[in-house]
Amino acid sequence: MTPPVVSIVAKSGTGKTTLLEKLIAELKKRGYKVGAVKHDAHSFSIDHEGKDSWRLTEAGADTMLITSPEKVAMVKRNPGAEPVLMETIANFCGDLDIVLTEGFKRSSMPKIEVHRRERSEKLLCRGDEYDPTLVAVASDSPLTLDIPIYDINDAGGLCDLIVERFLS
Amino acid sequence: MTPPVVSIVAKSGTGKTTLLEKLIAELKKRGYKVGAVKHDAHSFSIDHEGKDSWRLTEAGADTMLITSPEKVAMVKRNPGAEPVLMETIANFCGDLDIVLTEGFKRSSMPKIEVHRRERSEKLLCRGDEYDPTLVAVASDSPLTLDIPIYDINDAGGLCDLIVERFLS
Repeated sequence: MTPPVVSIVAKSGTGKTTLLEKLIAELKKRGYKVGAVKHDAHSFSIDHEGKDSWRLTEAGADTMLITSPEKVAMVKRNPGAEPVLMETIANFCGDLDIVLTEGFKRSSMPKIEVHRRERSEKLLCRGDEYDPTLVAVASDSPLTLDIPIYDINDAGGLCDLIVERFLS
Repeated sequence: MTPPVVSIVAKSGTGKTTLLEKLIAELKKRGYKVGAVKHDAHSFSIDHEGKDSWRLTEAGADTMLITSPEKVAMVKRNPGAEPVLMETIANFCGDLDIVLTEGFKRSSMPKIEVHRRERSEKLLCRGDEYDPTLVAVASDSPLTLDIPIYDINDAGGLCDLIVERFLS
């Protein structure tokens, strides 16, 4: 079973991660099992150089796992091209109620756009192009749109929307 | 499909990780897809404090994924008690040819023990107790045993054994 996925999108520097943190905390408070996915276009680093686990990845392991009583961590090389997001979510998030992603603005997933007037007057999804997958906007300033608008700090209101639309 | 699993065991400070690095590199050279699993009894840290991905885990995400063209990284909280190793391997290593684990000395998996005389005269698996799952020893000194003994640096020889026993 693949859980529903909602993507938090914004122009860079608008505060996607801050809103994501609030939404994750709010959904957890309501008892949901939540996943978070971030895309990195570059060769990101995770783990700490010199640690045993890092050495195993460096040695060439296709998949490196660290298991512990509390959690499991994994670094897995893509066998070929980068898999599509929904395949990755199906593989690793089947046990969750909902997944929030950061970015993936060109995907066809439902989206919430974060907007700050000082960053940009225009929205990503209601600007030069009209993105029909946008379900709500979290903004720091008044807007007139064809979809619901929430205050940028209103994690509770946005969670109500997520629950109603994707978890009921 | 769960791949075969071989565990590299040793008394602490004997050089398990160093041998694992060599075995991973050698198996990769021979074209196998290799997994490596390390157990951490404590609450290990992975990822870099303050990074966006780290913030998503800290916010409470049950599963955090970073995707990229090259690899995927994951930090997943155990939903309850720590799953048994074979369940974790079935979940995350089904695409691999072989998995090498570090430690797990009380498991029933086939084992290779690393031995250094200056660290200890006695073997873990041929000491006070006789462990029938031991398939070979990698040692820096001569031993007389009921199983094959390899030089501690002989990754090629140990790979031949792994391939013959588990990959043929």
